[in-house]
Amino acid sequence: MKKYLLFPLFLGICFTLSAQDMSESDKDAFFIKDIFSTALTEGQGNDWLMYLTKEIGGRLSGSPGAAAAVEYTRQMLDTLGMDRVWLQPCEVPHWVRGEKEVCRMVSERMGSVELACLALGNSIGTGPGGVSGEVVPAMSLDEAEELGKAGKLKGKIVFYNRPFDQTRISTFAAYGGAVDQRVYGPTMAAKYGAIGAVVRSMTNKTDDVPHTGSTVYRDGHECPAVAISTKAADLLTEALKHEKVKVFFKTDSKNLENKISYNVIGEIKGSEKPDEIILVSGHLDSWDVGTGAHDDGAGCVHAMDVIYILKKLNYKPKRTIRCVLYMNEENGGAGAYAYRDSSDLKKEFHMAAIESDRGGFTPRGFTVEGDDSIFEEKFKLLIKWMPLLEAYDLSIKPGGSGADVSKLKGQKGLLFGFLPDSQRYFDYHHTAVDAPDVVNKRELQLGAGAITALVYLLDKYGLEY
Amino acid sequence: MKKYLLFPLFLGICFTLSAQDMSESDKDAFFIKDIFSTALTEGQGNDWLMYLTKEIGGRLSGSPGAAAAVEYTRQMLDTLGMDRVWLQPCEVPHWVRGEKEVCRMVSERMGSVELACLALGNSIGTGPGGVSGEVVPAMSLDEAEELGKAGKLKGKIVFYNRPFDQTRISTFAAYGGAVDQRVYGPTMAAKYGAIGAVVRSMTNKTDDVPHTGSTVYRDGHECPAVAISTKAADLLTEALKHEKVKVFFKTDSKNLENKISYNVIGEIKGSEKPDEIILVSGHLDSWDVGTGAHDDGAGCVHAMDVIYILKKLNYKPKRTIRCVLYMNEENGGAGAYAYRDSSDLKKEFHMAAIESDRGGFTPRGFTVEGDDSIFEEKFKLLIKWMPLLEAYDLSIKPGGSGADVSKLKGQKGLLFGFLPDSQRYFDYHHTAVDAPDVVNKRELQLGAGAITALVYLLDKYGLEY
Repeated sequence: MKKYLLFPLFLGICFTLSAQDMSESDKDAFFIKDIFSTALTEGQGNDWLMYLTKEIGGRLSGSPGAAAAVEYTRQMLDTLGMDRVWLQPCEVPHWVRGEKEVCRMVSERMGSVELACLALGNSIGTGPGGVSGEVVPAMSLDEAEELGKAGKLKGKIVFYNRPFDQTRISTFAAYGGAVDQRVYGPTMAAKYGAIGAVVRSMTNKTDDVPHTGSTVYRDGHECPAVAISTKAADLLTEALKHEKVKVFFKTDSKNLENKISYNVIGEIKGSEKPDEIILVSGHLDSWDVGTGAHDDGAGCVHAMDVIYILKKLNYKPKRTIRCVLYMNEENGGAGAYAYRDSSDLKKEFHMAAIESDRGGFTPRGFTVEGDDSIFEEKFKLLIKWMPLLEAYDLSIKPGGSGADVSKLKGQKGLLFGFLPDSQRYFDYHHTAVDAPDVVNKRELQLGAGAITALVYLLDKYGLEY
Repeated sequence: MKKYLLFPLFLGICFTLSAQDMSESDKDAFFIKDIFSTALTEGQGNDWLMYLTKEIGGRLSGSPGAAAAVEYTRQMLDTLGMDRVWLQPCEVPHWVRGEKEVCRMVSERMGSVELACLALGNSIGTGPGGVSGEVVPAMSLDEAEELGKAGKLKGKIVFYNRPFDQTRISTFAAYGGAVDQRVYGPTMAAKYGAIGAVVRSMTNKTDDVPHTGSTVYRDGHECPAVAISTKAADLLTEALKHEKVKVFFKTDSKNLENKISYNVIGEIKGSEKPDEIILVSGHLDSWDVGTGAHDDGAGCVHAMDVIYILKKLNYKPKRTIRCVLYMNEENGGAGAYAYRDSSDLKKEFHMAAIESDRGGFTPRGFTVEGDDSIFEEKFKLLIKWMPLLEAYDLSIKPGGSGADVSKLKGQKGLLFGFLPDSQRYFDYHHTAVDAPDVVNKRELQLGAGAITALVYLLDKYGLEY
């Protein structure tokens, strides 16, 4: 009689079991163990990520890097033996940083001090002369609006300086509590006559690395804007305690004409229920500084590795498994809209859509959301097989999915966000240091294993109630 | 009526609660939130660790670094307002590496190739002439013994080359499955007449960083021994496929006379049950290469931060809280034996002893063990308040505690090992790259928060059944 070794969990406890004794859940446990072992020993994600980051580099929408990433990942998907691989066009903005930014604070007491800075994505440039003005600090949009209404921002440079709340265990929660300053701070400043905005970088860390990211102008209120490092922000804060301070900064950024770019898509057709789609995804574009290793090279190679691992294990899905590498998550979401519109038009049904866009760190589980009309019932269906993931210290909890897949909410499937450990993510997010050396190979591989395990369970058990 | 904000968990869901509605469990939840907030915003661990690593550096037993670490941490504990701080003497081995090692493989086909290496701790040196011999590969101690019995090791250099099992999710499990080669490989080789041993480094990573660590000679069977990097081991493996290969290596290590060193201890006397001790600990000594940042500077500052945080929150423990920074965990355990012997002599009772010696990474929980006669009953007592830790994604599971506190098992308390994420630990363990830059401040702080929360719950609820 053939003997199986039940997969050794956390404590290394093993025992044996004959084949006919095996329950469905034991079979699942074995297959999930195979998934993780394949991810850890044969996964291709790290190699793909090295190419994306070291050979291609930054991949901002409209850039040659983005185009190279589209072609490279299309070729890689082509090698995986999927039923179909294609490019889906979308029209993307084409913002360019131009010449390296300069930012300097000038005070009588301290003289002129350089501040490490990056122009914000989508922001207009200052022109070659730069902008110079007195600094008005504001800890929130509300405070800026009050100052604006009192006429105190006219001709000034607004300094948004509210730091991350370090007591939030999830750094994404801390980011969520601060990022409104970057997104809507500059337009608020411009609305009340400010000539520029300086934003404290979105990070937990105190260092000299500035973090870029999108800003959004509303109602035509535009002014140039930079993020400065947290150390620079602390220095500026200190200087403002003693005297009036001016800031000079110069940015060369501009929005060029829109470009055509692509989502890269591949699929394995389901053998029994091909109309129920399970989507795995990351986004191909990244900021221009750094090489988008965690954001979101990691997510792309996670999604690609799901396909690789399932193929390697010779798994024939009942449902259609589709891998989507979205374009333009960072500054517009054009890829996600194009995908959603096309999918809705074809009356497709995404039973589940999984996004990996929180980095390539050790997996902790998934957050999941869905349309109110279906969420509670469908969530209950996950509970029966959740212990299979909990054996790997992975949980599934209600929460947001991601900027790309959340656009599919109208199709009334479940939308998952892969949730890795969050502590280091904002050390690198949108910076020059989001580079291949800060990704740990095993942590990345475990992420691919976790997502593949979820796909397997969703495919096997479906979401019918 | 005063309102409290119930601590926002994972999903940021908040609601309010009046003071008199608060259950004991709500009060605990609030206090644990305060513990984590204090750890994340005021914890001193990172500063202490920077001093231990950057100013003091390597701290091998008997070295000036170890002596400096004893004095520094004694001074730091003195600042924390404990009831008593003292040094506990212990006699430690004094092994020194001497001049930098050299290891070279020599073959007809490839010529002479340098292999990155480190002498193993406790190993004897080769003398100035080094050793040179034909390489005999062995994948296990058993294989080496078989070869030895067949007379095939005489005058040879044994190459232990079994890699980590990459499919083990816990890297400690992978380490446990390979480290016998380093500990007992050289003495096995010597027993059968080998003149040296070369051991593949104990790591998941393929790189050029050699990992030192203790070897143990038995029954007087001694030969010089080095660890080589995994890349070097792979190169040697490749060469051996084609031809006979010789290795030359030279080490200058020796065991000098034993020294007197110290455990550093501080305690807060319990207000109600001073005879029930809750111990928190790490080990002060480290290997001489690198600066012992994760191993085990992190554990020391975790233990010290527990005291700092409880004091900061003005917590008056019912039981005695004792912080022990052990000496000589790495190559002998003299500190742990001295502590245990003294404690047994005084008929002390360690109700719980917690060791942090798995690095300063994001906490996942604790493993716990105890004498068979009490374990099951006492473990059950933890279950009632475990959800308070689970709210922070921390679990408590049966498993080993640690090399130092496990020696207290005879006192029949519970022995805990702090369990952080394990994926990166063996990238750094016992190497020159276990340095301050590979410790993430927030991950370290969360560890201190997790251990403090456990201490609080143990102190409040005790372990009586």
